[in-house]
Amino acid sequence: MIHQLIENIKRTNAPIVVGLDPMLSYLPKHLLDKAEKEYGETLKAAAEAVWEYNKGILDATADLIPAVKPQIAMYEQFGVDGLIAFRKTVDYAKEKGLVVIGDIKRGDIGSTSEAYAVAHLGTMTIGSKSYQPFGEDFVTVNPYLGSDGVKPFIKVCEQEKKGIFVLVKTSNPSSGEFQDRLIDGRPLYEIVGEQVAEWGAQHMGDSYSYIGAVVGATYPEQGKVLRKLMPKSYFLVPGYGAQGGKAEDLVHCFNEDGLGAIVNSSRGIIAAYKKEEYASFGEEHYAEASRQAVMDMAADINGALSRVK
Amino acid sequence: MIHQLIENIKRTNAPIVVGLDPMLSYLPKHLLDKAEKEYGETLKAAAEAVWEYNKGILDATADLIPAVKPQIAMYEQFGVDGLIAFRKTVDYAKEKGLVVIGDIKRGDIGSTSEAYAVAHLGTMTIGSKSYQPFGEDFVTVNPYLGSDGVKPFIKVCEQEKKGIFVLVKTSNPSSGEFQDRLIDGRPLYEIVGEQVAEWGAQHMGDSYSYIGAVVGATYPEQGKVLRKLMPKSYFLVPGYGAQGGKAEDLVHCFNEDGLGAIVNSSRGIIAAYKKEEYASFGEEHYAEASRQAVMDMAADINGALSRVK
Repeated sequence: MIHQLIENIKRTNAPIVVGLDPMLSYLPKHLLDKAEKEYGETLKAAAEAVWEYNKGILDATADLIPAVKPQIAMYEQFGVDGLIAFRKTVDYAKEKGLVVIGDIKRGDIGSTSEAYAVAHLGTMTIGSKSYQPFGEDFVTVNPYLGSDGVKPFIKVCEQEKKGIFVLVKTSNPSSGEFQDRLIDGRPLYEIVGEQVAEWGAQHMGDSYSYIGAVVGATYPEQGKVLRKLMPKSYFLVPGYGAQGGKAEDLVHCFNEDGLGAIVNSSRGIIAAYKKEEYASFGEEHYAEASRQAVMDMAADINGALSRVK
Repeated sequence: MIHQLIENIKRTNAPIVVGLDPMLSYLPKHLLDKAEKEYGETLKAAAEAVWEYNKGILDATADLIPAVKPQIAMYEQFGVDGLIAFRKTVDYAKEKGLVVIGDIKRGDIGSTSEAYAVAHLGTMTIGSKSYQPFGEDFVTVNPYLGSDGVKPFIKVCEQEKKGIFVLVKTSNPSSGEFQDRLIDGRPLYEIVGEQVAEWGAQHMGDSYSYIGAVVGATYPEQGKVLRKLMPKSYFLVPGYGAQGGKAEDLVHCFNEDGLGAIVNSSRGIIAAYKKEEYASFGEEHYAEASRQAVMDMAADINGALSRVK
């Protein structure tokens, strides 16, 4: 699947991923009204509106992007109905040829981590039948519990030819509270990164490993260090746009081959119509606003990349 | 809700929590057969059998225990149908007067962590109606992303009078890979524990905080240190039984008032009928085997506690 991701990035010439993180406040009124007419003021109505919203964005942007990253928390908040919308979104994105990165940040131990891995990347067998419970291509994984927590994901990735991105250095302001603490003079995120590099080297696709890392765009100096530490790991880079990360800040997350990183934007794309810049599209045409925002983001990042070449 | 948990512990005289972590291999054949007859070889059948299995255990043990801890991974592995079984299990346990600790180990940042908190502890408002998406009383939280990830949970806990257990020192063999690394001469788990103590002191119930900690039974010396570091935090203690933790190992997780910790057992209780000790109950009577295992576990832990008094 890392092969597919790289193919998609090369084909679209856009090292970007659209974060499908729908909040109720992002939904255009007409979608919510329509769903409430059908299902009342229910979680099902909200979830249905979320799904319609995603579908519009996918229809408008799928030809321009290699991948999407639905954030499962934004679906869990609508309960079981929200997870039905998550599943429909994953299926539809895959039908469109997109790679789907489930942003689930799961992490547990042994058979529990394996259950998460089966749920999101694997296959559950019931008698003579097999099912993919949620069916993503990649997921994000939290490393705090150590390799007991990560190895079950790697095992399922081997079987299913899928991949993971392990949280190394996240993009949020307080990420340093624990991740930056010094251990023998080196920050924890480097120790974790080193471990990811080791797992990665043992699980290679063609030129890149299918064990990647999450490295925030908001910490450019640290991105540079981590790029050297994990040369074969793909970086999933959050924090561009709304969180303050600029294209110039994240160029060091890429390798000299122009590959090695995929930059996420969520709100900046899916709620583009709410920004002054794209307001002229209007709420009804939110999906076209997203399409324009994708083109602008790709141009911004490709521009920054060409300036460092 | 920390008040309710302590009340339940005092009433039952059993500082234990039953981990409802159903694996397919634990399910008695008659439950799976019945569900497959109705729903075929489907995820829905498996999920329905899981729910029946849980219901049997809850009916047989609810009067003896203060709380249950469903591990959501074991439900996610059956997809949306699994999460319907999770929700039914939470509701049924609450009807029986039990405190429900959702073992979800979520952790993200800002609005995403808030979405998880709403999903599991909070209320989602759609128009004029309000819903509790999953409705647990407590959840477990992963601290790797720092306070940006934990504070949204605390905010929802304040509103809803609920609580969390933050992962500090987990029970698994590799938990030390990152958690034990020394920072200025002190292991990371102490740094995290100190932070939990600080959050906890600001969010007190009566005698204990509603910000607790996960501290594995498998590391007794570390439990002792952490108990002193977080005097007001309740400890959720995994690792007893199947993972190798003994009653003598975990007595130091309790305070002198006999409170302060609640010990989890999952497989040892819910799949007791598979152990030689309880095999005479037979598969059909798996729930009675669980009841006996609960009584034995409570006696074992209370015995160890009385020996250190």
